[in-house]
Amino acid sequence: MAERAASSASPRGRRRGSPDTRSAILEAARSSFAAHGYAGTTMRAVASAAGVDAALVHHYFGTKDELFLAALQLPVDPRALIGPAVAGPVEEAAERFLGVFLSVWDDPEIQPSLLSFARGMLDPSATRLVSNGLLPVVIEPIGVALGISDPHLRMPLVASQVIGLILMRYVLAVEPLASMPRDRVIATFAPTIQRYLTGDLP
Amino acid sequence: MAERAASSASPRGRRRGSPDTRSAILEAARSSFAAHGYAGTTMRAVASAAGVDAALVHHYFGTKDELFLAALQLPVDPRALIGPAVAGPVEEAAERFLGVFLSVWDDPEIQPSLLSFARGMLDPSATRLVSNGLLPVVIEPIGVALGISDPHLRMPLVASQVIGLILMRYVLAVEPLASMPRDRVIATFAPTIQRYLTGDLP
Repeated sequence: MAERAASSASPRGRRRGSPDTRSAILEAARSSFAAHGYAGTTMRAVASAAGVDAALVHHYFGTKDELFLAALQLPVDPRALIGPAVAGPVEEAAERFLGVFLSVWDDPEIQPSLLSFARGMLDPSATRLVSNGLLPVVIEPIGVALGISDPHLRMPLVASQVIGLILMRYVLAVEPLASMPRDRVIATFAPTIQRYLTGDLP
Repeated sequence: MAERAASSASPRGRRRGSPDTRSAILEAARSSFAAHGYAGTTMRAVASAAGVDAALVHHYFGTKDELFLAALQLPVDPRALIGPAVAGPVEEAAERFLGVFLSVWDDPEIQPSLLSFARGMLDPSATRLVSNGLLPVVIEPIGVALGISDPHLRMPLVASQVIGLILMRYVLAVEPLASMPRDRVIATFAPTIQRYLTGDLP
């Protein structure tokens, strides 16, 4: 069906499937997510802004979640981090999650693009991308997969500490956090994250 | 002496004391702190960049710390927050600090200017202002005044959680944090901050 959509495109001068079409869709998606947030963006509106059939958007990007992840241009698929964090007892989830997360951030090949991504997310124009997109699409599913209670409350708490850690250790490179060995960073922050995941909260 | 400096200024065409002089000094200070960080900035270099006598910089702004705070253009003098956080047992310092801090951030008259300040600090051009200035001049002195051990390690940990909380509750306005009653926010985050201040760390 996607094939058919691609070949039957441009009845009213719409674009045919091509690398340009893919970029046009991605650009339209980025504008729409930034302007209207995740919830306020539809596949149909993105297709219309890009001048293509909605079926072509599905063909290239699958679901709205996948289109959103593509629009974020993350250097790493965050869903790849969920597996290791979820496998194992929930009482040690914070340690596992920090281990995977920091090993990705500490990787000198990936870090530069993660840094530009983080700086982009801190730009005022990206505010809605984070609050209405990154949290529900990327961060809250980790809590759901872990089976914790109240992921809608607990995952924003986790995010508050993880974002602050990224800022201090990588973006601002504040010592002694910037050059602290990874195991010590994990041991420092795991109790905080674990309490937010499964501890008693007011 | 400051008076004398002001009236004896411009022997080589340097500016006389005036509101313009004050702005010129402040602008030169901001550029220098942003480009060279707190440690890399001298009163003399700021005076020279502003085309005034160094004595005039001292006259208008006092010490380098005070010049730095003026250049940050904080809507609240952070040193006013230190008093209440320091007065009382160190075991409850986190609760007191969060109480004072959140009451300032929750104030609808102050919040807009705090938000623009926070956004400015997140701009890549301000990185050095935060890591080489805001931390040693504003944040670490709180730990020193509290008399905690290792403020140089512990206060960046505190900052990592406080910055993340500001981002989630105010800058990104993520629910349920954005509209959570202040007392509940304090009860949620105080155990984290208190552990960073006085708890066992690896």
